[in-house]
Amino acid sequence: MTHLRDMLSNFLGDRLITAETARIAYTQSEGHHPGELPALVAQPVSIEEVCQLVRAASAQGVPVVGYGAGTSLEGNAAALTSDTLVIDFSRMNEIVEIASEDFLAVVQPGVTREQLNEQLRATGLFFPVDPGANATIGGMIATRASGTTTVRYGNMRDNLLALKVVSATGELIRTGTRARKSAAGYDLTHLFAGSEGTLGLIVEATLRLHGQPEQIVSASWDFANVKGAVDTVIQTIQSGVAIARMELLDTSAMMACNRQSHLGLPECPTLFLEFHGSGPAIAEQLEIVRMLGDANGGGTLRSATASEERNALWKARHHLLWASRSMIPEAQAWITDICVPISRLAEAISRAQTMIEESGLFAPILGHVGDGNFHVFFILHPDDKLSWQKASVINDAMVDHALSVGGTCTGEHGIGLGKRDALLRENGAAAVEVMRQLKQALDPQGVFNPGKIFAA
Amino acid sequence: MTHLRDMLSNFLGDRLITAETARIAYTQSEGHHPGELPALVAQPVSIEEVCQLVRAASAQGVPVVGYGAGTSLEGNAAALTSDTLVIDFSRMNEIVEIASEDFLAVVQPGVTREQLNEQLRATGLFFPVDPGANATIGGMIATRASGTTTVRYGNMRDNLLALKVVSATGELIRTGTRARKSAAGYDLTHLFAGSEGTLGLIVEATLRLHGQPEQIVSASWDFANVKGAVDTVIQTIQSGVAIARMELLDTSAMMACNRQSHLGLPECPTLFLEFHGSGPAIAEQLEIVRMLGDANGGGTLRSATASEERNALWKARHHLLWASRSMIPEAQAWITDICVPISRLAEAISRAQTMIEESGLFAPILGHVGDGNFHVFFILHPDDKLSWQKASVINDAMVDHALSVGGTCTGEHGIGLGKRDALLRENGAAAVEVMRQLKQALDPQGVFNPGKIFAA
Ligand SMILES: Cc1cc2nc3c(=O)[nH]c(=O)nc-3n(C[C@H](O)[C@H](O)[C@H](O)COP(=O)(O)OP(=O)(O)OC[C@H]3O[C@@H](n4cnc5c(N)ncnc54)[C@H](O)[C@@H]3O)c2cc1C
Ligand SMILES: Cc1cc2nc3c(=O)[nH]c(=O)nc-3n(C[C@H](O)[C@H](O)[C@H](O)COP(=O)(O)OP(=O)(O)OC[C@H]3O[C@@H](n4cnc5c(N)ncnc54)[C@H](O)[C@@H]3O)c2cc1C
Repeated sequence: MTHLRDMLSNFLGDRLITAETARIAYTQSEGHHPGELPALVAQPVSIEEVCQLVRAASAQGVPVVGYGAGTSLEGNAAALTSDTLVIDFSRMNEIVEIASEDFLAVVQPGVTREQLNEQLRATGLFFPVDPGANATIGGMIATRASGTTTVRYGNMRDNLLALKVVSATGELIRTGTRARKSAAGYDLTHLFAGSEGTLGLIVEATLRLHGQPEQIVSASWDFANVKGAVDTVIQTIQSGVAIARMELLDTSAMMACNRQSHLGLPECPTLFLEFHGSGPAIAEQLEIVRMLGDANGGGTLRSATASEERNALWKARHHLLWASRSMIPEAQAWITDICVPISRLAEAISRAQTMIEESGLFAPILGHVGDGNFHVFFILHPDDKLSWQKASVINDAMVDHALSVGGTCTGEHGIGLGKRDALLRENGAAAVEVMRQLKQALDPQGVFNPGKIFAA
Repeated sequence: MTHLRDMLSNFLGDRLITAETARIAYTQSEGHHPGELPALVAQPVSIEEVCQLVRAASAQGVPVVGYGAGTSLEGNAAALTSDTLVIDFSRMNEIVEIASEDFLAVVQPGVTREQLNEQLRATGLFFPVDPGANATIGGMIATRASGTTTVRYGNMRDNLLALKVVSATGELIRTGTRARKSAAGYDLTHLFAGSEGTLGLIVEATLRLHGQPEQIVSASWDFANVKGAVDTVIQTIQSGVAIARMELLDTSAMMACNRQSHLGLPECPTLFLEFHGSGPAIAEQLEIVRMLGDANGGGTLRSATASEERNALWKARHHLLWASRSMIPEAQAWITDICVPISRLAEAISRAQTMIEESGLFAPILGHVGDGNFHVFFILHPDDKLSWQKASVINDAMVDHALSVGGTCTGEHGIGLGKRDALLRENGAAAVEVMRQLKQALDPQGVFNPGKIFAA
């Protein structure tokens, strides 16, 4: 380790972080899977430096964990052993190219989604995927992230065209092209997407962009009960309305939201919606959705066209985790994430709701319901062991129910440490064995993020 | 081989084809890469039979080639050695389930796209991907196929949720779920999609369906020159119009089309278009497109709403290969396929056009231009060696130009035998080496479709 440290500090200088006080920041504060303190943290600025880092670590058998913004929720970026080298991509944050005429951007992995959209504003284009946190593009690709607009614009998989990846031998691999589609060989781009840094390190990405909508109307809409809200969602999706955002917040979530963001909205199950398009197209969609919601006990559909009002709504939505956490002093959050076929959404949410009520936990339900995807934020005091056990039981029951109706144990947060068993239940031992074989083929020494997705 | 034959005929009976006259049908008539005569052709009817076939072949070191409708164009399904066992999926053609409420269907691999849409008609749903031929779903997944509606509804990758796959050891693997999105582990579903039967055999697939559009308007539109037509396409895509189909046919293609399908349309560069949506939405889109086309020398936009008229147009489009081939007696076709970023489409097509003109070959240009994807159909007499050489030079130059502008050597036909060198040029030796490592990991004996995508 000393040898490696000296070697790396030679070429990185103060971009090799060795001080304990600075390394603590990399033990992953979000989520409930605390990591080990990594031995070293490197902050490369170029692809060549990443190649050198991987070669050096690999030669010494030192595990390498890629790190974006550290906002992942299943311990995905946690170091598991104290000899780990973390590669922090925050200094590789250049937007390499914006090719407006082809609706694409080339970025370094440390670019954040907010930074990218800031840069895009004047071009008339935007990048749609928006996890609540201001995550990095590298982290979002590595977890196959999605967000509030996925219901219309797709997730990271759908908006990813090409990658540059550093392999376990420190070689640079190019995958994909700038063409909209390709049938050229194995789809390596989408194998690396969602591989959580276990197969290679993403050092550049080519992303699809979308035209900024002509008009945007946001809305919040209170319902008498969760069922009415969810049935409205299911019927909207089934009616084929190309809605741009469709989020559910239950009563607890709305309480937290009001308290933190002063929205002053009714504290009952609520849909946050957004419509993109021309004036007439939006009017047509609003009309259909309103009819569906009215029949399901919808209250007042409060629409907002002014951008400040719209932004306030989505900012409140994106700050929900912190808002929820602040409801219990010194609490931590355990966030779970399942996704089911849309027709099974009402029963999945109602089961979660019943279990939470029976448990007496404070655990807001919310999510990207237009995709059939929702989360429970279990807000737990670190010392309250019983509550953690209850959360664990509910989490398992939610996953098992999702699997029993053809859903997945994670719509967007990935497997990390927390869902390794769930993955086995989801796809079976034979499929996970295939994943292990792929890992073995591309990273035989197990250098990259060992212990994630499946046990090392 | 005799041993294997006896063993298989025991459990397959007359679904093991041994007669030479019957096996000849499997030497791949489409495309210009004739295959060897396979030793045996099996027609399994169940997943269990496929597992048994693979185990038996694997134990004897006999190569296994999956076979759908045999319509692939790069020799993808051709046997390369005379000891090959072809597994023909045509009898595994059941539609297992249509789950309308979740917009999905579960099908066996031998179901054809026409069969599926026939079954879906009454449900209000449809499956969009439509390669010209009536291909099987298994073959379409294996080649990552696309079609005329990909510009709006995506390709096989985008419309695929889950798979059952038989591995090289004869085990059954389940990938993906019925949820719309998932971040659970490596994306095996999309690794198998496009792997051309070299990593596993697809025995079941879960597909995304779409709502049948409220209204459909098709149109043909003649242009003074190819440039005007292509500029109209580029500007339409850049304006963000969600057009459902946008196909180019050059003058040669229109000649062939008129002759075969009696369309009576002007013989000049022509766009075939389609609009899906509500009446007002279509009117809005038509208006924008018409304005763009008029400024680019568009002639008469002939629109058709009656379904017979629309079907006649698209049938003619889908029969273009046979129409073109019939222009030269006893000719064969060599079809090439490149895809470029939309802004580079005009120059890619104009270069191809110039080379074809200079060569004196009869070679219609056409394609899914809304995706930046087009084909050249070289119509060549088998004995005319010089013409084949000319076609080869043009094909190489087209690929090289596509790569030089960030495009791909194949938008949809796959690598097969014909584009193995091009794949190396496209992604580089390091990426192709990664593909080889994946192949080695999942099929160490090289049982599945050896020699495709890269040399065995
Ligand atoms: C408030 C809040 C809201 C959230 N909302 C959403 C949401 O709506 N949707 C959603 O999908 N997620 C959401 N998340 C989770 C999180 O934002 C996503 O998982 C995000 O993709 C993580 O990105 P990151 O940059 O923070 O990555 P990190 O947490 O740093 O890393 C995530 C994983 O990617 C790997 N990695 C990072 N960079 C690279 C690289 N360059 N190459 C290879 N591997 C790399 C890491 O090793 C790790 O396995 C939310 C989190 C919070 C805190
Ligand atoms: C007139 C014409 C027009 C065409 N237009 C288009 C077009 O618009 N877009 C397009 O993408 N293609 C097009 N093609 C090409 C062709 O239709 C596609 O490549 C199609 O996907 C092939 O399907 P198939 O069932 O014929 O497969 P096959 O040709 O039988 O096989 C194709 C590949 O898939 C493998 N395979 C087949 N079944 C399985 C299985 N169950 N499991 C694993 N591997 C399997 C084979 O081994 C082979 O590698 C066209 C072809 C013709 C003749």
